[in-house]
Amino acid sequence: MGVLVQKFGGTSVGSIERIENVAKKVIGYRDQGHSVVVVVSAMSGETNRLLDLAKDIMGDAPHGQELDVLLSTGEQVTIALLSMALQKRGCRAISRTGWQLDIKTDDARNKARITSIDAARIKQHLDDGAVVVVAGFQGIDSDGNITTLGRGGSDTTAVALATAIQANECQIFTDVDGVYTTDPRVEPNARRLEQITFEEMLEMASLGSKVLQIRAVEFAGKYKIPLRVLSSFEEGPGTLITTEDKQMEQAKIAGIAFNRDEAQITVKGVPDQPGIAAKILGPVSRANIEIDMIVQNVAWDNTANFTFTVHRNDFSRAMEIIEDTANKLGATGVNGDPGIVKLSLVGVGMRSHAGIASQMFETLADEGINIRMISTSEIKISVVVDEKYLELGVRCLHDAFGLAKDGTVDESKAS
Amino acid sequence: MGVLVQKFGGTSVGSIERIENVAKKVIGYRDQGHSVVVVVSAMSGETNRLLDLAKDIMGDAPHGQELDVLLSTGEQVTIALLSMALQKRGCRAISRTGWQLDIKTDDARNKARITSIDAARIKQHLDDGAVVVVAGFQGIDSDGNITTLGRGGSDTTAVALATAIQANECQIFTDVDGVYTTDPRVEPNARRLEQITFEEMLEMASLGSKVLQIRAVEFAGKYKIPLRVLSSFEEGPGTLITTEDKQMEQAKIAGIAFNRDEAQITVKGVPDQPGIAAKILGPVSRANIEIDMIVQNVAWDNTANFTFTVHRNDFSRAMEIIEDTANKLGATGVNGDPGIVKLSLVGVGMRSHAGIASQMFETLADEGINIRMISTSEIKISVVVDEKYLELGVRCLHDAFGLAKDGTVDESKAS
Repeated sequence: MGVLVQKFGGTSVGSIERIENVAKKVIGYRDQGHSVVVVVSAMSGETNRLLDLAKDIMGDAPHGQELDVLLSTGEQVTIALLSMALQKRGCRAISRTGWQLDIKTDDARNKARITSIDAARIKQHLDDGAVVVVAGFQGIDSDGNITTLGRGGSDTTAVALATAIQANECQIFTDVDGVYTTDPRVEPNARRLEQITFEEMLEMASLGSKVLQIRAVEFAGKYKIPLRVLSSFEEGPGTLITTEDKQMEQAKIAGIAFNRDEAQITVKGVPDQPGIAAKILGPVSRANIEIDMIVQNVAWDNTANFTFTVHRNDFSRAMEIIEDTANKLGATGVNGDPGIVKLSLVGVGMRSHAGIASQMFETLADEGINIRMISTSEIKISVVVDEKYLELGVRCLHDAFGLAKDGTVDESKAS
Repeated sequence: MGVLVQKFGGTSVGSIERIENVAKKVIGYRDQGHSVVVVVSAMSGETNRLLDLAKDIMGDAPHGQELDVLLSTGEQVTIALLSMALQKRGCRAISRTGWQLDIKTDDARNKARITSIDAARIKQHLDDGAVVVVAGFQGIDSDGNITTLGRGGSDTTAVALATAIQANECQIFTDVDGVYTTDPRVEPNARRLEQITFEEMLEMASLGSKVLQIRAVEFAGKYKIPLRVLSSFEEGPGTLITTEDKQMEQAKIAGIAFNRDEAQITVKGVPDQPGIAAKILGPVSRANIEIDMIVQNVAWDNTANFTFTVHRNDFSRAMEIIEDTANKLGATGVNGDPGIVKLSLVGVGMRSHAGIASQMFETLADEGINIRMISTSEIKISVVVDEKYLELGVRCLHDAFGLAKDGTVDESKAS
């Protein structure tokens, strides 16, 4: 028994039938004695419908204050419909928009950040015995203008509300039933994690396991709000994202993330002198191209090889810029390869367990997978390999680190 | 040059193309030096789309607070899109919802009445040089809940805003180019009126010329805000609805209204005693059936014939009730006829001109039209006739009172 903030995304409220199902689910939690705040997104398709109207007027990239006014109607429709569905079942419910809860944000149009929430208003409704149904993704700035948090902002709304009212748990209902050790489409033995730390979740999310908004995870981690990912459509406990505890220290590795969307660029034979990295990457950054991994090796002859990765969509633009830069710097050549993938082991356990990296490299070597680039952080080891090795790489690492479902671990390879 | 409040209904903003046209029109007025507040409805079809969603949950007659939350999104979509269209053309514009302008209403769900508006906020935006684009039909109650004014409430919003900011004129743009002497589909010679009084407009509107919401006309009349009806799609001065002035006293008759939706019920031979009208009509009213015309004639034998009209949809229900009542009162019989229409002459001029009624009756008699019921008020004479005489009756009266277009008056019949 406690206070729960539950968030249902666009797919979960994508039709009247699904909204009715959400109502049943919410009432189930309420019948267990919980106080419930529900945060909802626009019905799936609605935001795109509204965006198309705006595009008809403003062209391909609509933006600005009026876009916030337009898009925020999507969530308002959902809160009304879900409240109706709850009330029909005899459950006291009240819908609230961003402004009605005084969800204050900065004035960044279309990507505002929440600065404060009037917790007293929500608590009052909960004390009155109502389920409070809140429009996600929206707020108001200090001048009373409507703002939106950007796509996926409903997760952020849920976490911010949970923080403001000190909820016992923030539950994100989605179309998957939790966070997995890796993508089950690549490794059928992938296992749902009971728990994962905020740090691990951030690494998993940013590497392509798009279950949760990164901002929401950061927010929950900062304020230590337990966050649970679970399915809108099936029963089950989902995955709890929380701070580290003793039990979790047992696990070396939480999971294996991968990213198919990267491309690798290498500048060979650049003079090994101070400031060379900035000279190479500066022009790329100024073109608003995001750079992911960066590796620099010193060669024998006082020159260096400099390698980095960018999003595959930015590859040809980045290559043009780099070829120009390489000429100016007197480098001996530029190599580009869009046919690569990044594999990452993620786990807070690697902090206290030596030998994880070498076990990873050996496992890949045993399968004949050549590593083209390595990058490490405190809780993550990433390698770049040829894209043809993606599935094989994920599966052999999944096996090697004993991540498979209970009873399906290949004992000979489990660590 | 002055302050204008302009209202565009659902058809006028029914597509992106039409919204762009509204933007051009508004900018035209602004370029003439006017300050403009624009009130808009939901795009045509949108309110029904939202209602259908609510019906899927609540059944055929959705109602209550959450319906207000749902429907009010329709106008919010339009204000955003129109503001975008204005801004695209270099016109400063800001959208405002009901709550952003602090449009306070009572808490009657789905049919609230405006109680106050924060005029200072609108004036501030006008002083800043912006066109203020306001969501019609919506407000908030004293607890900050969203309310709606009921269908057509955008007219009321426009008049209330015009009153609050003391606008020079409130202009209602619609799909007709003004108020006509009668329905042009019945009398092709019907003429657009340059001016009409509030009182005349109320009689014309309530009798079936559905150009304007009655509440809006009442409101404008009460606060003496000049109201103009004009076309969204064509140029032209429309019709100005205003208080009486000397010029207008020249015209005896403003127009001819009619209503096809009535049915007549007669109770014959009821004892002519005090309280008999209440005894007959009480049970009908208690069944929530609205009664329009009521006429009572005393017969020779100290009994009375009592006749009234109801909406044709309520006819069979009203007949059942009346037959029961007639039995109890010892009346000699009940006659019902759903095949009737009401024709009404409307004009403030009849106050000071004698002989209008007899001219009307003679005109109808000349055409062999039998009058079945007569009812008069200070500025209106209504008669009930067989429905087959509707077109003939309207045309001969239109001729007789000289209402035809300039140059097409039949001189022999003009008064």
